[in-house]
Amino acid sequence: MPAERSREHTAPVAAARRRMLRADGARRLADLLRGQVLAQGFPGGVLPHEDRIGTEYGVSRNTVRQALDLLRAEQLVERLPGVGTVVVGQKYPHGLDRLMGLAETLHQHGQVTNEVRSMGPVAAPSPVAERLGVAPRDDVLCIERLRSLDALPLSLDLTYIPMDIGIDLLGADLENTDVFRLLEEITGQPLGTAEITLEAVNADAHSAAVLQAPRGAAVLMLERLTHLSDGRPVDLEFIRFRGDRITMRGLLHRSV
Amino acid sequence: MPAERSREHTAPVAAARRRMLRADGARRLADLLRGQVLAQGFPGGVLPHEDRIGTEYGVSRNTVRQALDLLRAEQLVERLPGVGTVVVGQKYPHGLDRLMGLAETLHQHGQVTNEVRSMGPVAAPSPVAERLGVAPRDDVLCIERLRSLDALPLSLDLTYIPMDIGIDLLGADLENTDVFRLLEEITGQPLGTAEITLEAVNADAHSAAVLQAPRGAAVLMLERLTHLSDGRPVDLEFIRFRGDRITMRGLLHRSV
Repeated sequence: MPAERSREHTAPVAAARRRMLRADGARRLADLLRGQVLAQGFPGGVLPHEDRIGTEYGVSRNTVRQALDLLRAEQLVERLPGVGTVVVGQKYPHGLDRLMGLAETLHQHGQVTNEVRSMGPVAAPSPVAERLGVAPRDDVLCIERLRSLDALPLSLDLTYIPMDIGIDLLGADLENTDVFRLLEEITGQPLGTAEITLEAVNADAHSAAVLQAPRGAAVLMLERLTHLSDGRPVDLEFIRFRGDRITMRGLLHRSV
Repeated sequence: MPAERSREHTAPVAAARRRMLRADGARRLADLLRGQVLAQGFPGGVLPHEDRIGTEYGVSRNTVRQALDLLRAEQLVERLPGVGTVVVGQKYPHGLDRLMGLAETLHQHGQVTNEVRSMGPVAAPSPVAERLGVAPRDDVLCIERLRSLDALPLSLDLTYIPMDIGIDLLGADLENTDVFRLLEEITGQPLGTAEITLEAVNADAHSAAVLQAPRGAAVLMLERLTHLSDGRPVDLEFIRFRGDRITMRGLLHRSV
């Protein structure tokens, strides 16, 4: 009887373990293929046949299929009957090594344009006033922009700027120019440093709609407080990048 | 008739516009409150009453409620009857300014422990071989770890290491020690630099289950190729951080 019972329990447990191992293998394979997809490493944007991938990576055909399913769920590849698995998604690299505006960092990839969704003075809420070094309730300029690369929505940016500088932004060409460049023109000095915080969050329904992404889509959220070279904080931003369109790339050093 | 038709159309349009403006306002407020939540800026972890938040930020009570709903959806706050809105989530800052292991960067926040899910030699797939500078199909050590801070799962890490170095990792205390520290001990030289790529992705079902997060949860994905100080690449990693538990923090400079 104990032997019988143990056999009954063992079969489902073994099957669950096989499924788990296959899922682990699929994730590992997907991570490697994803790197090649993003680096545009497949000639003609077509992935090799499942069998060939399986042989190359030493995994079963089912594992390959499961890995491709993961990339498909990320909208990086699609299955085309008669053609195979093709690359349909692309992510653009935002530099992390230097403080740069979006148009500046993506200039090799296309034209960044900005839809100004709203712009005007607001009474600075205390967390904004504190970080920008202005008195609470003082007016600050608040700008919200939907930023696109060649008409493809990339990010939703909310920007707070002290009013003495912001006043000169009101007539500027915000549709086609990075705020960073305008700040350097207006103040006559280069930017200095920026404190940044990066998070991954699920897009709420409204932000998703504005970004034309599915509700709950992963968003790379960047909070950034930028200072002029003389140290004055001049630009507090909350930026939601579409996770399926932007990566952040940089080089870290062990010693400072 | 035209006037009549125009009135018919205008009322729903105006209502839709009000809803949109309120949603924009709620997102802006949520971003400011989120910063205070993450910085532990509310005494006793209790947010002010809705009316007080509304007065402070100059927004309606409905906007405040919608903003708090957004933070609740991110599992940062919860509503407790008779108490109000309380902070229930915390994110831990991973340094971006210096190349650091997880235990090292979080040592002020608690104890990092690692569950080794699998460890062993694998024939290096070509993208791994290429980046680690070994011959294709040469053995490399592959380690998968679930990393936790005081028993709270933070990340799922897949690591590839050349076998000549990896062999000395097989008997090491991987449960309690960063791979970075072990690599420096084994090779007798400090690490040098690492190329990193950060993305936001939705967790697939299996990764989510391992990380004890909901399916589709936003994950901060880090790919990192680390070199020894002599330039040799020794550690290729694919790390999935739970988006609700980790932020990346750094300082960027305008001039290099």
